[in-house]
Amino acid sequence: MQPYELSLTRAADAIRNRQLSPVELVDSVLQRVEQVEPRLHAYVTVTAEHARRAAREAEKDIAAGRHRGPLHGIPMGLKDLIDVADMATSAGSRVRAGHRAQADSTVAARLTAAGAVLIGKTHTHEFAYGLITPQTRNAWDADRVAGGSSGGSAVAVAAGTATFALGTDTGGSIRVPAALNGVVGLKPTYGLVPRHGVTSLSWSLDHVGPLTRTVEDAALVLSALAGHDPRDPASLTAPATDYRPGADADLTGLRVGVPRSYYFDHVEPEVEAAVRRAVDRLAGLGARLVDVEIPMTRYIQATQWGLMVPEATTYHEGTLRTVPDLYQADVRVLLEAGALMPAGDYLRAQRSRTLMRQEWARVFQEVDLIAAPTVPVTAVRAGQETITWADGTVEAVSDAYVRLSAPANITGIPSLSIPVGHDTAGLPIGMQLLGRPLGEDVLLRAGHAYQQTHPAPARTLTPTA
Amino acid sequence: MQPYELSLTRAADAIRNRQLSPVELVDSVLQRVEQVEPRLHAYVTVTAEHARRAAREAEKDIAAGRHRGPLHGIPMGLKDLIDVADMATSAGSRVRAGHRAQADSTVAARLTAAGAVLIGKTHTHEFAYGLITPQTRNAWDADRVAGGSSGGSAVAVAAGTATFALGTDTGGSIRVPAALNGVVGLKPTYGLVPRHGVTSLSWSLDHVGPLTRTVEDAALVLSALAGHDPRDPASLTAPATDYRPGADADLTGLRVGVPRSYYFDHVEPEVEAAVRRAVDRLAGLGARLVDVEIPMTRYIQATQWGLMVPEATTYHEGTLRTVPDLYQADVRVLLEAGALMPAGDYLRAQRSRTLMRQEWARVFQEVDLIAAPTVPVTAVRAGQETITWADGTVEAVSDAYVRLSAPANITGIPSLSIPVGHDTAGLPIGMQLLGRPLGEDVLLRAGHAYQQTHPAPARTLTPTA
Repeated sequence: MQPYELSLTRAADAIRNRQLSPVELVDSVLQRVEQVEPRLHAYVTVTAEHARRAAREAEKDIAAGRHRGPLHGIPMGLKDLIDVADMATSAGSRVRAGHRAQADSTVAARLTAAGAVLIGKTHTHEFAYGLITPQTRNAWDADRVAGGSSGGSAVAVAAGTATFALGTDTGGSIRVPAALNGVVGLKPTYGLVPRHGVTSLSWSLDHVGPLTRTVEDAALVLSALAGHDPRDPASLTAPATDYRPGADADLTGLRVGVPRSYYFDHVEPEVEAAVRRAVDRLAGLGARLVDVEIPMTRYIQATQWGLMVPEATTYHEGTLRTVPDLYQADVRVLLEAGALMPAGDYLRAQRSRTLMRQEWARVFQEVDLIAAPTVPVTAVRAGQETITWADGTVEAVSDAYVRLSAPANITGIPSLSIPVGHDTAGLPIGMQLLGRPLGEDVLLRAGHAYQQTHPAPARTLTPTA
Repeated sequence: MQPYELSLTRAADAIRNRQLSPVELVDSVLQRVEQVEPRLHAYVTVTAEHARRAAREAEKDIAAGRHRGPLHGIPMGLKDLIDVADMATSAGSRVRAGHRAQADSTVAARLTAAGAVLIGKTHTHEFAYGLITPQTRNAWDADRVAGGSSGGSAVAVAAGTATFALGTDTGGSIRVPAALNGVVGLKPTYGLVPRHGVTSLSWSLDHVGPLTRTVEDAALVLSALAGHDPRDPASLTAPATDYRPGADADLTGLRVGVPRSYYFDHVEPEVEAAVRRAVDRLAGLGARLVDVEIPMTRYIQATQWGLMVPEATTYHEGTLRTVPDLYQADVRVLLEAGALMPAGDYLRAQRSRTLMRQEWARVFQEVDLIAAPTVPVTAVRAGQETITWADGTVEAVSDAYVRLSAPANITGIPSLSIPVGHDTAGLPIGMQLLGRPLGEDVLLRAGHAYQQTHPAPARTLTPTA
């Protein structure tokens, strides 16, 4: 096994035990970049020189006994919506030509302080306002979409060109590409990870979180990211926690909610079957399955869009006036639509969100987590715009990809997507575990138990890559 | 001194010591109602029978040793925006004809549980959307406005027809009538007092709080009102506290901010002089005066209206469509204007609020409270619509009355208005003390120290009443 193939947990163990040097690991990842990046296009910018220098420093520090913890010397990709000092934050947009961030975002600063080594900035759907990331190819099938908006980050982690990566998630943008590329994606509780220095799409729905190869890896990254920052007005003051799950895979007593409605409506049969198999495995580990009713499902789409569209437009109103032609057509039409929305529509969405939070809290009195598909379909072909369901219903691809993710954005609850198999075309299928606010530990414990006991394929990386 | 003239604190002491019975107190207040209510019109409904029955029960309970605390047997008025089970909540509007509340609001239930006796529901400006309360007369001069929107509550407390009352405050509606009628008004920290069962004007700005004759009285009522209620989505989980201030009037070490700008611009000279005298008295008690700059003053008005107008319209959109003619003209025009507001204007106001909160927090690193006029003018004549300032500027009366109150609504910080003298026409002048979020104890301590040491007139009630 090459170093670039190691999970973050394995690589960190090897580095700590001096079986692997950060320089070897980073060199291996950079070679992998040279090999697959021309086909995949996960990166906007690769900072090879910087990475090699940082790896040498990490090697020296660790040799001198100054080991900073599990991220020390680990190669990472950052979605190009996340500021890194003195680098452009392109946000996938011509609007940002000539941009240069003055300072690190909070998350970049925290990861750097933990010793992680930046490999580069990864592609995003323009300003995170879409679910495709057209610049990037799916790691499993180059004719398929990467998913988005954190498509570059998901593909880099799936293809071995980053040991972990960060994404952002406003309507599914971490979990959707994680599911479509067979990696783990965690959207934490709203406010747990500070967004200072991260370009906003819709501030009341935006989250930052990790994409990794394993659940345990996600816990390690979250432990470095979480914690209060007064520069993000929504940042929570919850105390810092070590999220690393214990080794015990016994889930006895855990109540797992299985949605009776919504999450299994208009879902591909192969996706449904894989998720139900995975749920049965949780039951096999001792969890008790409980049927749950998802509340207020008729309002999910209107609430998500009613919040997102006007907030996004407000963020962009200056450049929308001065340089409208620099936006891609798909994003520009959404931004312009937002300018026409009356305040009443936004306020109705806000009120609906308040009610939804209350109703979901009631569901979580009955169960400890809810298991459901992350997305109703695996990766569609590039250029495909709609999905036709068995009953003849036609749905826009972007609506389908947002549909099952949006509730966790609206309510702010954490959601962890894990790979649970492949369809007959060989494309990955994702299951999401949804939990109570600040219930990340429960999700990570259940997800880790699943991964420890599930007979996963020997190679964690993609066949095409 | 008649029982109706007693402060809440004095009445509570007399009841506890068996020098006064709740029946005597309530009878005295009801006689006072018969005497002055025909001139003042503070009440929509007087519940005399109910009050006498509750007073007899309180008397019996206390005689049997079941004394519930300082509010037991105390006569109160509730603004008619606050639900009391089986009574109409008229909200001052024909829209509410035939209304009947199914259950007590949280605040009504808490006060009843504490033993307070309802005298009646007090007049409000229609749906709290105005600063006049045209139904009611000022307690000091029947030709002057009561102020609003909690005009009935302020007049009842000033005139001796309630020992204390509750109001609501969205842009000054507790503090403005408190100042204009010479009583104490407290707008607590946003989220400290639950609003479940209280008709909303603008949910992100609405607060419930007490109107009383003394600062100590306000502390007693706040102690009964504060505390989490999950049925108000904005309710804070701060632990319950006894707010009653200590007897020590020494303010040594307290840093009192004196605004260099905004709060003394376009303020009547007599109001400014009275407030500055009161500030000097705080200094005389040991406080250190510190000049402070009020941040973002150019944005206060636009932010207040940008938040309030569309939220109010959203709340009323059903009835605005079905029975628009039942609204008073002044309120209807505001509600209809809100329907035309784009979401972007609301969102800009939200963003401005976020920045204001941060800037005000910075000011409160330098000082423990800020002292300022509550309103720039004393009670205007009924029917007066504008104020002409010395420099020729003309300002709408409602704008003038909201101007100095709005910052505490926008930022959610607590604000306590106390009477600090009269102008040459004999009308009361109010000073507000503004504090940090959840800094009620500091405001109450300073206000109580002022009232203990300030040579107040012997009678606390109004001459006209």
